Amino acid sequence: MMIERVHFDLHFVTPWQLGFKLISVNVSDIYAMGGRPAYALLDIALASGAQEDFTEDLFDGIQCALKTYRTVLIGGDLSTSKKDLSLSATLIGYTKKQILRSGARVGDRIYVTGHLGESACGLEMLKKIKMTVSLRREPRSAKLKNDAGKAKNCGRGSMGDIRSQMSFKGLSWKAIEPLLRRHLMPMARNPREYARSATAMIDVSDGLLIDLSRLCNASKVGARIYEEEIPVSAGMKEAARSLGLSPLRLALTGGEDYELLFTASPKKRVRAIYIGDVVKSGMTIVDSKGVEKTFSAEGYQHFKR
Amino acid sequence: MMIERVHFDLHFVTPWQLGFKLISVNVSDIYAMGGRPAYALLDIALASGAQEDFTEDLFDGIQCALKTYRTVLIGGDLSTSKKDLSLSATLIGYTKKQILRSGARVGDRIYVTGHLGESACGLEMLKKIKMTVSLRREPRSAKLKNDAGKAKNCGRGSMGDIRSQMSFKGLSWKAIEPLLRRHLMPMARNPREYARSATAMIDVSDGLLIDLSRLCNASKVGARIYEEEIPVSAGMKEAARSLGLSPLRLALTGGEDYELLFTASPKKRVRAIYIGDVVKSGMTIVDSKGVEKTFSAEGYQHFKR
Repeated sequence: MMIERVHFDLHFVTPWQLGFKLISVNVSDIYAMGGRPAYALLDIALASGAQEDFTEDLFDGIQCALKTYRTVLIGGDLSTSKKDLSLSATLIGYTKKQILRSGARVGDRIYVTGHLGESACGLEMLKKIKMTVSLRREPRSAKLKNDAGKAKNCGRGSMGDIRSQMSFKGLSWKAIEPLLRRHLMPMARNPREYARSATAMIDVSDGLLIDLSRLCNASKVGARIYEEEIPVSAGMKEAARSLGLSPLRLALTGGEDYELLFTASPKKRVRAIYIGDVVKSGMTIVDSKGVEKTFSAEGYQHFKR
Repeated sequence: MMIERVHFDLHFVTPWQLGFKLISVNVSDIYAMGGRPAYALLDIALASGAQEDFTEDLFDGIQCALKTYRTVLIGGDLSTSKKDLSLSATLIGYTKKQILRSGARVGDRIYVTGHLGESACGLEMLKKIKMTVSLRREPRSAKLKNDAGKAKNCGRGSMGDIRSQMSFKGLSWKAIEPLLRRHLMPMARNPREYARSATAMIDVSDGLLIDLSRLCNASKVGARIYEEEIPVSAGMKEAARSLGLSPLRLALTGGEDYELLFTASPKKRVRAIYIGDVVKSGMTIVDSKGVEKTFSAEGYQHFKR
């Protein structure tokens, strides 16, 4: 469920991106159990003053994401609201082997599937650069209606055209764009190549530390992770520093990256980023000097700026 | 989807009733295809100032309805909104034989499963009697938490205790109560005994004329209905007159009765109310003097006060 003024701000995100994100975040929940999405039902309440353009862009973004994830819209409800846009999606998916949060065993390794903290860094940039006007209208090139062949690219192609309007403290568009994209139109991570090995899995939606705590609690185990192994991209590092933020903190506590966090036996060959180990109890992080510090699901708040 | 200030007004309905109604109206959609509900997913955004009592009552109403319809809550999302309560339900049901709107054949009879116009009449009364305070808190007796044995009765029992606070233009509580109930906590009509005979089916959610038009359009047929056969209860007649409203107009155009409207071959023995016949084309209503008048889905507006 995504509610205006709670989950998103229409000054920062286009309706197209919002529609895309609505599907991505729900697909991510199915991926996180090793499933593949099949059917979507959408309940959408448009603010009574919504323009036709706005609605069309929103549905184009939804349609593009549905194609991207090979998911079919089978129902729902369209309504109005007095003030705020309200978006609700139910996805139905299938899996032969469901991967729960509760399957991690002591001795398993802990993996993530990609860079962390990028979405949070993108959000911080958006807040600062106030590119309200330029982002409110998505370029028409982003719309690939009835173009199944390009569905896989429709997500990838939709932000490039606004590059000329963007610059931030001397950072290149090449550095900025992936961070904004990760926040505005995240892609869910397909679990296909990890599903066989994974003993437990969750998607990183609320931040690494809190989501890892959830997985460990469900599995009744602890975790030791290594600060130096947390995947942070060079672009994010650069952007975070120009914002005066710690890249590591963003990576540990920033939400909405929608990477997969999973555990697997050390005997399995896994093509993902090894960030720590499942231990008997306790949640700790080992810093670059080898010092081990405790963290908890609640404690993640302390990392937040 | 039910949105505050669009679909409901918390001055008229208790959170308990709202929760019950959310499930009923969605079950009604599954019943209308001859299905049985099995699973529910709920997306609920509570206004940020919502009291704990309010939330508890809302969920008690939902739980009671889920038990009533033997439906299991399997997922969803709980969120907040800045101002308005937003309720969204997705129900998954099953059927061996799905009954579509498109199966009506010329010569079939048209049936409804119960009295019409009651919900609309109840709403009109609520608007007049402004029983805001007394209806806002549901009596505790309405709550039958963890009481599966009483699930079937929990809906029935929840409005009686406020009778002492109610009176309206000399009408008895016995006359008022069913009308308020039909609006505030409607029951979906189980299609079990009609499903075998029905050739086409829809639930009366927007009003008899508009829903009959939908069924006929989908079936590419017309309809002739008989004014004198439209089922109107004595209590509704009395209440409508005291409100200065036409009972027939309420029955033809009032929404949210959640009775089933269906067609069946005249060869079938059907235990429902026979209100008209499927004809080749045109939508007409025959009045008590035998005069046949045309109506259309759009034309239903003219009946509205």
